Amino acid sequence: MTSPVTFLRNTWYVAATSNEVNDSDFLSRMILGEPVLIYRQQSGVPVAMRDRCPHRFAPLSRGKRQGDSVSCIYHGLSFNAEGQCTHNPHGDGRISERAKVQVFPLVEQAGFIWIWMGAAEQADPSQIVDCSKLLSAKPTAVATTYIHSQSNYQLIADNLMDLTHIDHLHGPLINTHGHLSPQTAEVVELGGSVKSSWQWSGDTIELMRHHLADPEGEVRNTLDVAWHPPAIFMLDLFVYQGEVCVSVEDYHLLTPETATTTHYFFASTRNYNLDDAEYNAQHIAGMRHAFATEDMPVIEAQQLAMGDEELFDLKPLVLPCDTGGVRVRRKLSKMIEAEQTQPLAMVDNR
Amino acid sequence: MTSPVTFLRNTWYVAATSNEVNDSDFLSRMILGEPVLIYRQQSGVPVAMRDRCPHRFAPLSRGKRQGDSVSCIYHGLSFNAEGQCTHNPHGDGRISERAKVQVFPLVEQAGFIWIWMGAAEQADPSQIVDCSKLLSAKPTAVATTYIHSQSNYQLIADNLMDLTHIDHLHGPLINTHGHLSPQTAEVVELGGSVKSSWQWSGDTIELMRHHLADPEGEVRNTLDVAWHPPAIFMLDLFVYQGEVCVSVEDYHLLTPETATTTHYFFASTRNYNLDDAEYNAQHIAGMRHAFATEDMPVIEAQQLAMGDEELFDLKPLVLPCDTGGVRVRRKLSKMIEAEQTQPLAMVDNR
Amino acid sequence: MTSPVTFLRNTWYVAATSNEVNDSDFLSRMILGEPVLIYRQQSGVPVAMRDRCPHRFAPLSRGKRQGDSVSCIYHGLSFNAEGQCTHNPHGDGRISERAKVQVFPLVEQAGFIWIWMGAAEQADPSQIVDCSKLLSAKPTAVATTYIHSQSNYQLIADNLMDLTHIDHLHGPLINTHGHLSPQTAEVVELGGSVKSSWQWSGDTIELMRHHLADPEGEVRNTLDVAWHPPAIFMLDLFVYQGEVCVSVEDYHLLTPETATTTHYFFASTRNYNLDDAEYNAQHIAGMRHAFATEDMPVIEAQQLAMGDEELFDLKPLVLPCDTGGVRVRRKLSKMIEAEQTQPLAMVDNR
Repeated sequence: MTSPVTFLRNTWYVAATSNEVNDSDFLSRMILGEPVLIYRQQSGVPVAMRDRCPHRFAPLSRGKRQGDSVSCIYHGLSFNAEGQCTHNPHGDGRISERAKVQVFPLVEQAGFIWIWMGAAEQADPSQIVDCSKLLSAKPTAVATTYIHSQSNYQLIADNLMDLTHIDHLHGPLINTHGHLSPQTAEVVELGGSVKSSWQWSGDTIELMRHHLADPEGEVRNTLDVAWHPPAIFMLDLFVYQGEVCVSVEDYHLLTPETATTTHYFFASTRNYNLDDAEYNAQHIAGMRHAFATEDMPVIEAQQLAMGDEELFDLKPLVLPCDTGGVRVRRKLSKMIEAEQTQPLAMVDNR
Repeated sequence: MTSPVTFLRNTWYVAATSNEVNDSDFLSRMILGEPVLIYRQQSGVPVAMRDRCPHRFAPLSRGKRQGDSVSCIYHGLSFNAEGQCTHNPHGDGRISERAKVQVFPLVEQAGFIWIWMGAAEQADPSQIVDCSKLLSAKPTAVATTYIHSQSNYQLIADNLMDLTHIDHLHGPLINTHGHLSPQTAEVVELGGSVKSSWQWSGDTIELMRHHLADPEGEVRNTLDVAWHPPAIFMLDLFVYQGEVCVSVEDYHLLTPETATTTHYFFASTRNYNLDDAEYNAQHIAGMRHAFATEDMPVIEAQQLAMGDEELFDLKPLVLPCDTGGVRVRRKLSKMIEAEQTQPLAMVDNR
Repeated sequence: MTSPVTFLRNTWYVAATSNEVNDSDFLSRMILGEPVLIYRQQSGVPVAMRDRCPHRFAPLSRGKRQGDSVSCIYHGLSFNAEGQCTHNPHGDGRISERAKVQVFPLVEQAGFIWIWMGAAEQADPSQIVDCSKLLSAKPTAVATTYIHSQSNYQLIADNLMDLTHIDHLHGPLINTHGHLSPQTAEVVELGGSVKSSWQWSGDTIELMRHHLADPEGEVRNTLDVAWHPPAIFMLDLFVYQGEVCVSVEDYHLLTPETATTTHYFFASTRNYNLDDAEYNAQHIAGMRHAFATEDMPVIEAQQLAMGDEELFDLKPLVLPCDTGGVRVRRKLSKMIEAEQTQPLAMVDNR
């Protein structure tokens, strides 16, 4: 289904977690409304191409691996990792100039495989959001997960930029017991990013309390969430008790599947229980459960209520807690508009 | 999904049966294409409001009861039974002029909860169709039920105004054995209503026969169905045997859910077996079974065959039995058109 | 759902296999987007009419058989096998000029029931594709089957006209081990039909090998597929070993259900094992399995990838193997266009 919806294209999205793509299988995933085939070359380096044979549009992901090439199941055309046809079993075997598949720039970094769906010549890996915390973390102190959401990614972005929802929507694990909503979050822009910050003193959230030297003692909390285009959110919670700081640093990475569905990737690191693999697994499972069972039902109900209308066209009531999210929507909207009005820089997607 | 389909708005529809709305839970039901939240206040008085928070459109029905108020699950805004925001936990807690939810006039009467989806200032409870027979009936001699139909409500209205279908579509319980079709029903207009009437002598329907003094004896039957706008039908069957009359008086109350789906409410009273609770339960279950398994499959197949086309645009063959139903369609159509061309009287639905 | 898609109408399609229509039941099947009722008269002669009562559009297939007539379940109108209303139980029983159902010309021939969805006066049974091989075959040497496909019929036509796909898509039973793709098929037009032909020497396909006098011996194969409008394909494989020829002659008959779904009928005959009923059953089951599990998933994925776009609008890469299929698409397209621009010859479908 083609949609008039536009996405930011000249940017890096997460296409998959590293462990979703193994040595032998194909992964087929729709990204920005386009079917994408992802697989690892024999060197281990992943590659992504349009999951659609240029001959009769059969999905290449139904085909066969031949070394680093893909052979279409329907008529046997083979394409190498550059998307170039390398074998045409038909007639005299001549390979037409047009016998190629669009390849998407791909970078594997920090446990994720990043994809560039825009003009390939503009793809610069140095622009990938810095996830060095994930890279440097011990394997027992970092974990990633994936959730599929039946909602536009901007509804999830709103959710993440406005953390006051935690106290209303979430259960005891991460509830701050009302510390967030009364505050007007500090919203600052740093280069192209937008950051919302909250602070409170007294107790902390249940998730952190048990890792304090004195679980009943007084603490000071700082909570930040920073948006990086297109839809990457770094959420940091620091809990200070005396000289000691206990912290979690999380990444929420949103990739539009279609106008009304989203691939939601999540990674979490921390500075405590660093060698506890069992805790590590419990922690990521607990966070995933909270997002999937508490946030998603409400966000998906928002999507149903809004249909294909734009948020601002529905004239929502604006609250103080919306400042960060509205700022992100406006900036992203301008970036998409700027990209759309520069036709020369746009990729030919067919 | 917004639809170009128009409904009569300045009128009373049944939103629910009284026993569908208990003391503690929320009922969320789409009416005329709009999500409506219905619940009882602590006084027992029911209230209805748009099931959509004005902030970010989360369904209020996912939220929490706080006395007579509703608190949105997503960001904690509270709304009282008048739809006014009474608590904003964010920032300085100021409550904007715009922080309100549309409330719909609601009246509980005769076992039903009636809703007015039009201009609230025009809502006059005295205009609710007189259901005093339901009110005055003994509890063991009145029953209500509900059927969800995958069809436009006017296809069900056609079905009810043309009772000749009974002999063709229905089984032995209510079949008249061919007495209806040969007659040209008498169709009269009484004020704003339209009534079709049939009469026959000899036997009666199986449902009534067993309640006659002489089940094999000669009787005279009168069968009436009266339409009241927008889609309320009062069906009376009187079976006379000598000086005695055995009767059932039924109400069919249709509320559009969407352009192609309907909430079908039904109530039945009678003048025999008045103290027989078991018969009462069997009677309503039997009627519900006939509608759900005999009428609905055909009406829903009609809907599929017609898609979103208007009945008259498809140039149906018109039979003598259609007189009442066509009269109702024409009158309702004029009422809707009149309402649509009086923009000042229309409610702002957003 | 009405669709702007056009089909060739003045032509014969297979509506059903003979054994799908028994002596007592109704068959309701959508053909070219229209619901069609098919049943056998008491003489055994099948009849087809629009499966939609002209009164209120209830499906006639929900009604009752009365001799050779159909009585509508909703209001009891009866229609004879000519589609003429013969009984109106309503009022004075007068039968309107307009009380008729469109009847479609129908011919039973060679195990199939053929339907003409165009202008009835142009329906000439002598134009039905010659299937005399099916007629003359022993009952133990001919079999038919049916597959429902979630794809436009032209995608299946492409599949059949380009048999090089066999070596890439299909398993060991019918794989030629690479003999087809290197050849440029000979494509010839014969009257209104288009035929693609391949030849090879050496071995043959597994399906045929076991029926040779010397299964390991050298053979010569000829493989032809001939398209007849609208979407009938005769596929012949002849395997020559010395003086002896072992052959299968198959019919693939495609009938559009809607723009994106197809009724796929298949019949197979052969010149070996003529009296082996068990082999006959295994053979048709094996072929059906290959089409349903190997071809259909890819063809249905093509349909999903293409949505409602036309093949050539998507600028497919054209390979030597496409010659026959492209020729068929162009000829069919011209026939449909010619028919559409002759409005006088077109049937009134309402």
